[in-house]
Amino acid sequence: MIEADFQIVHAGQLVCIGTERNEPGPRRRGELSSLAIIPDGALAARDGKIVWVGPTDQAGSNVTLTADAIDSNAGGRVVTPGLIDAHTHPVFAAPRHLEFEMRAAGKSYQEIAAAGGGIRTSVAAMRANGLGDLIAKGRRVADRMLALGTTTAEAKSGYGLSLEAEIKLLEAIREVNALHTIDWVPTALAAHDFPAEYQGRHEEYVTLIVEEILPAIADRRLAEFNDIFFDTGVFDRAQTERIQTRARSLGFGLKFHVDELSDVDGAALAAEMGAVSADHLVFISQKGIAALADSPTVAVMLPGTAYFLDLPRRPPVRQMIEAGVAVAVATDCNPGSNMTESMPLAMNQACVLYKMSPAEVLVGGTLNAAWALGRAQSIGSLAIGKQCDLVVWDARDYREIAYHYGVDLAVTVIKNGKVGK
Amino acid sequence: MIEADFQIVHAGQLVCIGTERNEPGPRRRGELSSLAIIPDGALAARDGKIVWVGPTDQAGSNVTLTADAIDSNAGGRVVTPGLIDAHTHPVFAAPRHLEFEMRAAGKSYQEIAAAGGGIRTSVAAMRANGLGDLIAKGRRVADRMLALGTTTAEAKSGYGLSLEAEIKLLEAIREVNALHTIDWVPTALAAHDFPAEYQGRHEEYVTLIVEEILPAIADRRLAEFNDIFFDTGVFDRAQTERIQTRARSLGFGLKFHVDELSDVDGAALAAEMGAVSADHLVFISQKGIAALADSPTVAVMLPGTAYFLDLPRRPPVRQMIEAGVAVAVATDCNPGSNMTESMPLAMNQACVLYKMSPAEVLVGGTLNAAWALGRAQSIGSLAIGKQCDLVVWDARDYREIAYHYGVDLAVTVIKNGKVGK
Repeated sequence: MIEADFQIVHAGQLVCIGTERNEPGPRRRGELSSLAIIPDGALAARDGKIVWVGPTDQAGSNVTLTADAIDSNAGGRVVTPGLIDAHTHPVFAAPRHLEFEMRAAGKSYQEIAAAGGGIRTSVAAMRANGLGDLIAKGRRVADRMLALGTTTAEAKSGYGLSLEAEIKLLEAIREVNALHTIDWVPTALAAHDFPAEYQGRHEEYVTLIVEEILPAIADRRLAEFNDIFFDTGVFDRAQTERIQTRARSLGFGLKFHVDELSDVDGAALAAEMGAVSADHLVFISQKGIAALADSPTVAVMLPGTAYFLDLPRRPPVRQMIEAGVAVAVATDCNPGSNMTESMPLAMNQACVLYKMSPAEVLVGGTLNAAWALGRAQSIGSLAIGKQCDLVVWDARDYREIAYHYGVDLAVTVIKNGKVGK
Repeated sequence: MIEADFQIVHAGQLVCIGTERNEPGPRRRGELSSLAIIPDGALAARDGKIVWVGPTDQAGSNVTLTADAIDSNAGGRVVTPGLIDAHTHPVFAAPRHLEFEMRAAGKSYQEIAAAGGGIRTSVAAMRANGLGDLIAKGRRVADRMLALGTTTAEAKSGYGLSLEAEIKLLEAIREVNALHTIDWVPTALAAHDFPAEYQGRHEEYVTLIVEEILPAIADRRLAEFNDIFFDTGVFDRAQTERIQTRARSLGFGLKFHVDELSDVDGAALAAEMGAVSADHLVFISQKGIAALADSPTVAVMLPGTAYFLDLPRRPPVRQMIEAGVAVAVATDCNPGSNMTESMPLAMNQACVLYKMSPAEVLVGGTLNAAWALGRAQSIGSLAIGKQCDLVVWDARDYREIAYHYGVDLAVTVIKNGKVGK
């Protein structure tokens, strides 16, 4: 008998995604729809780790519960791994609803920027905001993420754009992670944009990142990854290579915002540099697709941003999947271009706008997202040895999670074997 | 002093929409953005009706509370009238997530119908479903609506398409309305589609509606409105005129699904027949716009359906507003073409996809929606004499309600002066 301090039985569909702990790599063509569903399934955990998975009618003969165990019944509902949001900007000083209003009134990106909008709005607000207030705001974002089924989320800096403000932002992320049930995975994004005060001196800002900001973040162990916005009008190829080479040498894993505004051949660079993920990819080229298909780099799709900005162009997701690219789905939660914490909504948007299947978006929001955060050994599937992070959904079929949208279907959220909601 | 049994103070923005009870007609160009916001506002009610509205610092000298009164503090949050969803199909027997999956896989409407999908899926399930089960399912839909800030919703039949099944469905709607805090406004929609068994005998189904179904619904007082799907491939002009003329003579108010699939000059017919609303209007003509502008008929926009079905065409909403058409925004909540109960999401979609402003969608989801349900004398604004239906939002600015989407910002929902959430 296996001793457990958490058990859930009678999951109408226990969607394991993988039942083996050490999946060999992110899911690709042919595997991307493989959900490993156990009908009327059960799961047991001890000390926050999954110790048994199987049909409910075998739980009694395999699992024995400790005296203070949580013994729960899903009542036929769907149970999945906790959702993982692999791309978010969750700590910001102020909402940007005025830009939203301007966009609805037909104002262009340039007009909005000229009126003081865009990333720089968030930068000015961030620099003026105290750490305590940022932590309080971040906790509310984390509350909403967890309530909607997200048990792990990446969390980027990138609204500071100075040594002091980037450190402050990453400290806020660290504190939210420490205080909150959710896990936040910190990513440095000093290379989100050029700060206004470096107008005409962009190389100096690159030097600041390379010589001061990245080493300071590494010293303080404030981030696991370093990200950069490599695209037309932002960081160019040489600047990107300089920054990411330095980041890699300091021990950061690499992430890239690439090919979002134009094809800069960014996906291939991300693959070549061994990034865990290349994100956005709206303009990815054939060469980029081939490069990702041959690499462990996960393509992170952010359909909510395309929706929120009402951009008609869609990345060639089906072609990417057919080529063997590993695809994840994330929110891009941020106050400018997609103000939502909802992973189920992102999964709906990936089905509706990008024509991914309900199964593909579920893998994309769990196991492939775990790969995009370098954490597939511990989260992303209901497999023995992994963290007991799961969601009980108000649904009888897993497809309903993406289908029934804009509402909160997460009835219960379990994080590390404990009730998080 | 005015005596009250409900009071809320310190609304950072008390968004009244109108402060006069008897607004002369639905809001049009120039009025559609008029929100009548009181900064640091307060409101008092007695026996479910609003008795006082004003600045918080004047509440103490105007309002005296009864011993058992609810005395609440919005803490600087935004307060608006309860949202009104003017177009929903909220009682159905089964979800249609398999169609959602087929659509993501690129199947056409025809292929989905051939595989047993479409409205007829819902009809077969509805006919087989017992009344008690339908009521239970409807209550869950009503729960989600109310939780997201909707205090009144229209509720259509239209999945029965037989005398017995339409009556059953309207009885389920009546029971949910009686049992639940939310108000549902019942609309008969026997003319949603032709039932399969009337293949090749469409006129006989029209006769059944006119001679049996409508009189039976009228006798039982099961619906306030009669609706019809007048479009290419569904009910034609002569059938529509026959059915709606009969409905009007039986005392029903009229609603129309029109110009959704093509321009059938349906908006003009709706206006001519004195309908309270013309809904969808994706293909509305110049003539239709002019007709609506000259009539009391409200144009109900359903952007979620266009999104969910990923249809690129958008109705000329700005042109309609400029011409003086009164515009409302609704969800079209239904299991086939838009599976969501969320009015805030519909308002977001109207901003993002239809370029309405955050103010216009708020009027469209409150006062103009009340007009589209013939209830503007009692709901839709925070005005003395109206029902005390309001929502306290986790927001400091009303624009955030449409901007911050996919999450539940409704902190407190008051229905008839009592706490509904």
